Amino acid sequence: MQAEAIADPVIELPPVRDDDGYLTKAFIAAVEAAIEAEDRSAVLLLASNLHEADTGDLLEALNAGERAAFVRLLGSEFDYTALTETDEAIRVKLLEDLPNEVIAEALGDLDSDDAVYILEDLDAQDRDEILGGLSYADRAQLKKALDYPEESAGRRMQTEFIAVAPFWTVGQTIDYMREARDLPDSFYEIFVVDPAFRLLGSVHLDKILRAKRHEKVTSIMADRLDSVEATDDQEEVARKFERYNLISSAVVDENGRLVGVLTVDDIVDVIQEEAEEDLRALAGVGDEEISDSVLTIARGRLTWLVVNLATAVLASVVIALFEDTIEAMVALAVLMPIVASMGGNAGTQTMTVAVRGLATQELGARNMMRVLNREVLVSFLNGIALAILIGITAWLWFGSPGLGYVIAGAIIINMVFAGLSGLLIPIALEKLNIDPAIASSVFVTTVTDVVGFFAFLGIAALWFGLPI
Amino acid sequence: MQAEAIADPVIELPPVRDDDGYLTKAFIAAVEAAIEAEDRSAVLLLASNLHEADTGDLLEALNAGERAAFVRLLGSEFDYTALTETDEAIRVKLLEDLPNEVIAEALGDLDSDDAVYILEDLDAQDRDEILGGLSYADRAQLKKALDYPEESAGRRMQTEFIAVAPFWTVGQTIDYMREARDLPDSFYEIFVVDPAFRLLGSVHLDKILRAKRHEKVTSIMADRLDSVEATDDQEEVARKFERYNLISSAVVDENGRLVGVLTVDDIVDVIQEEAEEDLRALAGVGDEEISDSVLTIARGRLTWLVVNLATAVLASVVIALFEDTIEAMVALAVLMPIVASMGGNAGTQTMTVAVRGLATQELGARNMMRVLNREVLVSFLNGIALAILIGITAWLWFGSPGLGYVIAGAIIINMVFAGLSGLLIPIALEKLNIDPAIASSVFVTTVTDVVGFFAFLGIAALWFGLPI
Repeated sequence: MQAEAIADPVIELPPVRDDDGYLTKAFIAAVEAAIEAEDRSAVLLLASNLHEADTGDLLEALNAGERAAFVRLLGSEFDYTALTETDEAIRVKLLEDLPNEVIAEALGDLDSDDAVYILEDLDAQDRDEILGGLSYADRAQLKKALDYPEESAGRRMQTEFIAVAPFWTVGQTIDYMREARDLPDSFYEIFVVDPAFRLLGSVHLDKILRAKRHEKVTSIMADRLDSVEATDDQEEVARKFERYNLISSAVVDENGRLVGVLTVDDIVDVIQEEAEEDLRALAGVGDEEISDSVLTIARGRLTWLVVNLATAVLASVVIALFEDTIEAMVALAVLMPIVASMGGNAGTQTMTVAVRGLATQELGARNMMRVLNREVLVSFLNGIALAILIGITAWLWFGSPGLGYVIAGAIIINMVFAGLSGLLIPIALEKLNIDPAIASSVFVTTVTDVVGFFAFLGIAALWFGLPI
Repeated sequence: MQAEAIADPVIELPPVRDDDGYLTKAFIAAVEAAIEAEDRSAVLLLASNLHEADTGDLLEALNAGERAAFVRLLGSEFDYTALTETDEAIRVKLLEDLPNEVIAEALGDLDSDDAVYILEDLDAQDRDEILGGLSYADRAQLKKALDYPEESAGRRMQTEFIAVAPFWTVGQTIDYMREARDLPDSFYEIFVVDPAFRLLGSVHLDKILRAKRHEKVTSIMADRLDSVEATDDQEEVARKFERYNLISSAVVDENGRLVGVLTVDDIVDVIQEEAEEDLRALAGVGDEEISDSVLTIARGRLTWLVVNLATAVLASVVIALFEDTIEAMVALAVLMPIVASMGGNAGTQTMTVAVRGLATQELGARNMMRVLNREVLVSFLNGIALAILIGITAWLWFGSPGLGYVIAGAIIINMVFAGLSGLLIPIALEKLNIDPAIASSVFVTTVTDVVGFFAFLGIAALWFGLPI
């Protein structure tokens, strides 16, 4: 026998992700096989050194039974931070399957922001039981964070941070950091506070590293005070991070006292969510997740469809006004959806730009009139272009130049209304404190349908002297 | 006279931003007045200490003439980084108005990523002239970055970073940082490289601060190698940052040699852009910016409208097949838009979820069949709910139970097609390497229009024995 044959068999671990960033089938299959065989050492070998994001995606790839077995097999090696990287539905289900004492023990080791993230979706009873299993200090800290409103800075912040007195030197600060316990996993700035813990300023780590030991921290402190209030909405906070390219920011209470720190990795998720929320809202899908059940999803989407049904019926009522007109000239029924649909598309274009402009604050009182003028002009110009195209099409199709003129006129009218309503409806909703992303499209398509059918059938009736 | 009356008049500077984060009218007005009066000291007082993001927003709020005057008045106090915070149209126009020598001098002082950002939109001649005005080292660096593909990591990276040898100690590293010139404005990790500059690992600043001076950097180096290739697309890079909660990442060339560093603040913009791109693409508005001209915007949107016109005409062709049917029962013309519009809305819902799922990789080969089953079921359930509602409405409205049955059947058929096409069309486009966000909605609405009109008018013709 040769040496290599008697060597320990080297286990070939499958690659975790493929080139496109998806978990590989081979990796998922290997984990599933290990779970199936209840082979703890294989599960540990495959999954105990994963990044929390990989573990999170792996949990999503497993089925419900495998997930619980996976966590059980990993035991104390399971990194609960991975739960912050899964869908809410999966997280809640998995936490239900685990004993509350086990969860409590695990949460004690997490950074406070991750612990809050995991706790906030649980029902009150489970949450209290888990909190009861924590140390007094951890419990007090998490309870305080949970008292802040949902989606506020206070919910997302870490309560672990380094704060020093203004008279400290760089050397003292560095020595303190070398000794300190209960620091966050990673941090990018330290804070300077007065005796009442009011925030005076912050110093980025690169500034500390490049300063001499005897320098005062206040001499290298940033004069610009980037802080957010704990009650600030996460969307507002995200805008600030984005605007000023922040990496982290102090969180203060209503008295200006330092209570926590927010880091950009949490904010990245918020930015992503908020942009996606607008997209989903415009299309009438709520915050459903890819792992939600059929009934949850169906119910969530039905509301939107029923609201849109009402607007569709309204459009039909307009058409019904012209039943006699259509009976006299059935080509009108053939062409009328074109007028409505072109208006709908143009209205959606303007509305999308308006909704995002309002969300990113690029559209405001300052440029509203300019944008309004522009939208009307854009609609009018495109209306003329489309009117010529559609007019000629209708003329050739039905051999009636009159029909071409009528549809061309209706198109221009509807396009201008589309531009106006696409801009003004979101602005009006925003003023009324209604999220323009959610409500705009129903109103805009109502306008473009009603105006489209009314203009086309009405002009046709007048032009051809048809009965109404 | 009392003391306070003879004191220097304290100039009250207006607040820069209001509570909602918009620049205040008072601030903009004060700057405009100072520009109008060519009052350099007032402009300096108001604007020389602004954050680059505030200056960027201020430039957007001014008109074209004021912008150039503002930059001229600020002179060497103008922070060119602010140009990275404005719309492309404004940036390009402003750079055209400035002498190339002035731009060259300013770019020499910027971080390389900002300089590249400003240069990449200029035409080749201006770019070469500006590059010619830079020092040899700066020019070589920027040219190299500009050689990388657009929207690649190489374009977005900073080429200023700190790299040390593996045998260095923490103390040596800190001393080196204290002395080094040409460091980035801020940085979060240092890199360890071999003699050939191949990346061995990275050390976060907090780890350095907490280590003893005599420790080797390799002993506190992260074993996980988070690096991206310079040619990687920014979207792929953003996904990596997001997935692994990165703050910065090394950028390496094809030989694994360290060439730059990417920080999350640049990636935040990419994440925002990519989510917004999907939203805009779905609505058929390209990368227009709020400051673009009427003609640019109109042209950009017209393409989409013309493509949709083709699908609207296709739907009309289907209706034309049933002209005789409609002539015999004009109520069909009144009701038919409801069927098409419900299908369109349901299709858009599914499509939006599918497009985002593909973009965020939550939808992949692994869960495709499950999602397909779910979408068909959701569509079918909602189809039944809507069919009942609409069926009863039609029955009561036209006093014909038959019409109720017909429209109910057509709705269910169209809803199922909406669910199928809303999911399968984006997936098919992705497989064909066509961006599903751009092309899906045309195809999906074509399906829901054609199927909707065909099913409703066809079933009606059969049910009532009408002529076709």
